[in-house]
Order: sequence, then structure tokens, then C-alpha cells
Amino acid sequence: MDGNISCPFCNPAILDYAFLESDKHLALYNIAPVLPGHSLIITRAHLTSILELSEDELYEFVSFSRKAIRILAQVFQTEAFNWTLQEKEEAGQTIAHMHIHILPRKPEDLPETGEWYPKLMNNIDNIIDSRKRPRLTQTEMKNIVERLKKAAADMM
Amino acid sequence: MDGNISCPFCNPAILDYAFLESDKHLALYNIAPVLPGHSLIITRAHLTSILELSEDELYEFVSFSRKAIRILAQVFQTEAFNWTLQEKEEAGQTIAHMHIHILPRKPEDLPETGEWYPKLMNNIDNIIDSRKRPRLTQTEMKNIVERLKKAAADMM
Repeated sequence: MDGNISCPFCNPAILDYAFLESDKHLALYNIAPVLPGHSLIITRAHLTSILELSEDELYEFVSFSRKAIRILAQVFQTEAFNWTLQEKEEAGQTIAHMHIHILPRKPEDLPETGEWYPKLMNNIDNIIDSRKRPRLTQTEMKNIVERLKKAAADMM
Repeated sequence: MDGNISCPFCNPAILDYAFLESDKHLALYNIAPVLPGHSLIITRAHLTSILELSEDELYEFVSFSRKAIRILAQVFQTEAFNWTLQEKEEAGQTIAHMHIHILPRKPEDLPETGEWYPKLMNNIDNIIDSRKRPRLTQTEMKNIVERLKKAAADMM
């Protein structure tokens, strides 16, 4: 991966969280999911903004993201989801490596529909995401990543 | 426009809010912006989900969205923004016509960075968006749309 020494998304250890890979992209399960299925789409290269992408790269990034949505939709049994991108710190971006959050949603999964977002923003002092939210164990991460990989393989 | 009689985004009156148009898409200034620059990207056709789009249509939708971001970035003098899509009611979608929200962001524009999102979700009983948020007058809307159209023309 293109390296940025201080960037967690450039750390090869991140591959343990990847349930879908292409030559340029990764879909990662979130170590501290706000809701079940909360995942992140990143480029392998350390890019900071979708404004930097060529038209082809933009298309590839979004098309890859949609593949991840289809896998999450199947495994988490819902076609409802939030898809969000924060660009720059003022917008709430805490890791300066472009990433899209995907959250599958279910009826009444939260007391208020929009409540996931403030939780997402509560991610200062983080590695992947908030240390303040409960984090998956290694075994839990391994299991969910395997399950998503299997679903991905079945869908291809 | 492809019509859905009960859909505000299928109402031709919406064209008064459009600052960027293609044969398939519109970028609309929000009648009740959560923050200055708050805009919506829609397809002219009454589609409900990005999962329905062909790969070409997906690319066109996102590429058009990014053009709108560049215009908003220039007029509102910032490259920070939130870009979000809600799919289905469980995820907070209140108008069942696919739309992306774009919000230009500035340092300390809100007490909490993530605060715009609950405001966005507070949009029940709406036409375009929340009746609970302050709405632009016709003159204000006309002025901002003209300003954005001029920026768009200058950039092309």
C-alpha cells in the first residue's frame, strides 16, 4: 500500500478488517461499529479528497462502494443504509485518508434515526474509529470478516 | 420530468431551485438550509435508490454531484464538506426520490461538528426539507441560485 507512516489506513494490519478488496480499494469492517454492519470504504493509496480523483477513479471508488453495500445488505438483511463522506476536519473527518462510512439500517435500531451520526463524530483519539465506543474482539472481527467475505464470494 | 404526483422532487416548480442541470440530474439549493450552501443532488427521474442505477448512471450521478461540490466550494469558499445519502425511511430518507445532501463546512460553523445531521433528520412534515428550519424567501432563493449559476457558467 502507498505508505503514510502516521495513517492507520496505510498500515498493512488494516487488511485483517477487509472483507472486499480490489487493486485500488478496500472495504473494512469498523473496529467500533456504531451499528451492526458499520463499514468503511477506502482507497489503498493515501488520498485525502474525492476532489483529487480522476473521473475514472471516482467511478471506480463509487462502484466498489456499491458492491460493498450489496454485500452488507445481504448479510445484514436490509436495503436501508446511510452513506456518508466527511471531507476535511471542519466537516468531521478525523483520519485524513479519504473514506466513506456505510451503515446498514433497520427499523428502530436507534431511539432517533439520526443518532448514529453524532456517535460517528465522537471519534477523537482514535485509531480506526472511536475508542469511546465498544470495540470488537479479534475473534469477533475475524468472524464477521469471514462471513462478509463468504457472502461476497457467493455474489460474484 | 418523469412524474410522481405526490413527489416534490418531481414537481416542475423545483426547477426554480436548480443551480446546475444536466439531461438527467439537478443540483438544488435547499429551501431550508441547515448551513449556508446546503444543497441536494437529484435525478430528474423518480428513482428511489442508488442500487437501481446502472453502472453508467451511477457514474453520471456521482460525477454530476462532484461538479456541484466544486461550484459550492468556490462560492462558499471552502473545500470542506459533508456528502450524505439516506436510503429508505429506516435510514432517515423522508422523500422517496433519491437525493444526496451536500453541505459546505467551515471551522466552528456549528457548536459540534456533527450537529448538522440531527437537524437534517428533523425533517418530517416537509416539502423540500424541514418546515421547522427557517426557510429562504423567494428573493433569497433567486439570488443564491443566480450566484451559483454564474459560478457554474464561469467554471465551465
